[in-house]
Amino acid sequence: MDSKITYCKIDKLKDLIQSIDSELILVIADLNVWSEYSRLLPITSIEGKKVLFWKAPDGEKVKDFSNLSQALEFFLSKGVHRNAHLISLGGGATSDFSGLVASMLLRGIKWSVIPTTLLSMVDAGVGGKVAINSAHGKNLIGAFHHPSNIWVCPEFLKTLPEEEMLSGMGEMIKYGYLSKRISQKILEKEDLDEIIKDCVEYKKEIVSEDFKELGKRKVLNFGHTVGHAIEKHYGLTHGISVIWGILIVTKVFQNNQLQEHLKNLISALDISIGTPPWLNKTFPLEDVMILIKKDKKVTSLEDIDLVLVEEIGVPEIKRIKIDELSNKLNAATNELRTITI
Amino acid sequence: MDSKITYCKIDKLKDLIQSIDSELILVIADLNVWSEYSRLLPITSIEGKKVLFWKAPDGEKVKDFSNLSQALEFFLSKGVHRNAHLISLGGGATSDFSGLVASMLLRGIKWSVIPTTLLSMVDAGVGGKVAINSAHGKNLIGAFHHPSNIWVCPEFLKTLPEEEMLSGMGEMIKYGYLSKRISQKILEKEDLDEIIKDCVEYKKEIVSEDFKELGKRKVLNFGHTVGHAIEKHYGLTHGISVIWGILIVTKVFQNNQLQEHLKNLISALDISIGTPPWLNKTFPLEDVMILIKKDKKVTSLEDIDLVLVEEIGVPEIKRIKIDELSNKLNAATNELRTITI
Repeated sequence: MDSKITYCKIDKLKDLIQSIDSELILVIADLNVWSEYSRLLPITSIEGKKVLFWKAPDGEKVKDFSNLSQALEFFLSKGVHRNAHLISLGGGATSDFSGLVASMLLRGIKWSVIPTTLLSMVDAGVGGKVAINSAHGKNLIGAFHHPSNIWVCPEFLKTLPEEEMLSGMGEMIKYGYLSKRISQKILEKEDLDEIIKDCVEYKKEIVSEDFKELGKRKVLNFGHTVGHAIEKHYGLTHGISVIWGILIVTKVFQNNQLQEHLKNLISALDISIGTPPWLNKTFPLEDVMILIKKDKKVTSLEDIDLVLVEEIGVPEIKRIKIDELSNKLNAATNELRTITI
Repeated sequence: MDSKITYCKIDKLKDLIQSIDSELILVIADLNVWSEYSRLLPITSIEGKKVLFWKAPDGEKVKDFSNLSQALEFFLSKGVHRNAHLISLGGGATSDFSGLVASMLLRGIKWSVIPTTLLSMVDAGVGGKVAINSAHGKNLIGAFHHPSNIWVCPEFLKTLPEEEMLSGMGEMIKYGYLSKRISQKILEKEDLDEIIKDCVEYKKEIVSEDFKELGKRKVLNFGHTVGHAIEKHYGLTHGISVIWGILIVTKVFQNNQLQEHLKNLISALDISIGTPPWLNKTFPLEDVMILIKKDKKVTSLEDIDLVLVEEIGVPEIKRIKIDELSNKLNAATNELRTITI
């Protein structure tokens, strides 16, 4: 099952929703996005359709059990049926959450995504991995549930806070390792809208080959094994944590050229990400390893699938012992203390 | 993806678990079943495997958000990985719940079912429809998640309370309409173990043709549209409610011969189910219709897929207006007041 991707202006979204083959539309909208865009998006009332509207607390906060239960019970209290269609309006947290709601309602109804952040356009909104967070780690509770449509409107980025743009750039930098084409476009300072399209297409292609992440899709986790742990430990944004994850994995497992590439991508995107939070301190190895062991990429009590990049555009998945990762990070403690990009 | 079905003695279960291709076993066991069978099932410690054990409150109580969140967080706190394998030990409530836990943990791990009630052997344990209950109806929140193995041990039925045996018989009676073969075996008073096998095989076959219940699988809902509403309204057991559902649907939509068949099946199974709870009272039409509209089988705001049986062994799915169902039930009010089997 493939998602249909459409690039459009915000004022075309209502027509797209109108064309959905269901007379019952459920909307989950990020509170902040809604307060900013409700006038441009008159979707609470659509001719010939009944619209049920649930406003989500902004950002990652929505991804917990209490909100999951509230949203599900809200829609069920209104008499949802199997042919209802859910629409997610917001960033990656909103689509992660909404997709899980859609997957669980009556054991699964169709849904579509309107990603409103850079990160969700190039990553979370595409691919059908949906989830809430556990007390023990991000995205550990979820499902695979393909959206029917992904409607990408880069116009939303005009009002996106700088920190969130940066986070999206972090994920784009990851694609700058996985795909030679995207790497070139970034380094040649191509228009952002064009790079977004390439990231979406790249991800869509990988996902269509391996929806359930049993093999090839794992390459999308490049920089994420250590990155997720850093994100959790320091409470940083996702994209920035992925950049630190890439920095560490290229330092510890790879070569200078791949480290240099990080500097070039960041410079071409003209962003400033500062210094690692552990600079001149001890890298929090113990906590990072505890968090990594709880990550979904762990495949047994002893092994983990780590993504490395042979050369730009040639990712590989390497199954290694968790102890080996720990030992390598430990051996690099001194270098990590002073590492910067 | 097909489930492997094995019929065995209880003392073979440990070997079957031992043979699972994972060193991490998660068990969700019904509290009552466990207190009765723990000595026969020494599965808290299995050589070469780590076993994590979560005891479920008995029966339908487990199927709520609070337990779902507790079980998921418990397993995650212990460091579950993607290759872990979950085992459900208990009746249909336990397998509905456990399957949903398995489907959500790290976006889905493998699982196997040991059904311990008649109802779960012939119905809930087979087919991968997993769910918890909503405040607005049974099984409205869930997923489709095939178990890898179904291990059927009719031995468990020796200690099953009579009321639960009756409930399982209700579901067997449904098969006695859907399948000519099962109908004959019941009417010929074949051994119960044999009828169980035929029910399991029948359901498995239907499910393998239509896992997501988009078409043919819906026939398994025969008697359930009205039955579920009656179950909820009166707080009756599932199987008994299905019998009342069959009684009503054959009365209102079908012929005397199909009504007579119900009497014959009940008599052959040598069970006593008493009289309808609304006998000599007014059938609770309004509440039943509200509950039906919230049911998953509703396909739009106006239509519902109702299962009828042309003749024994020939079910058909009929899309009708919800209003038509309501009108027909309303027109039959007087007959329903005095109906018995």
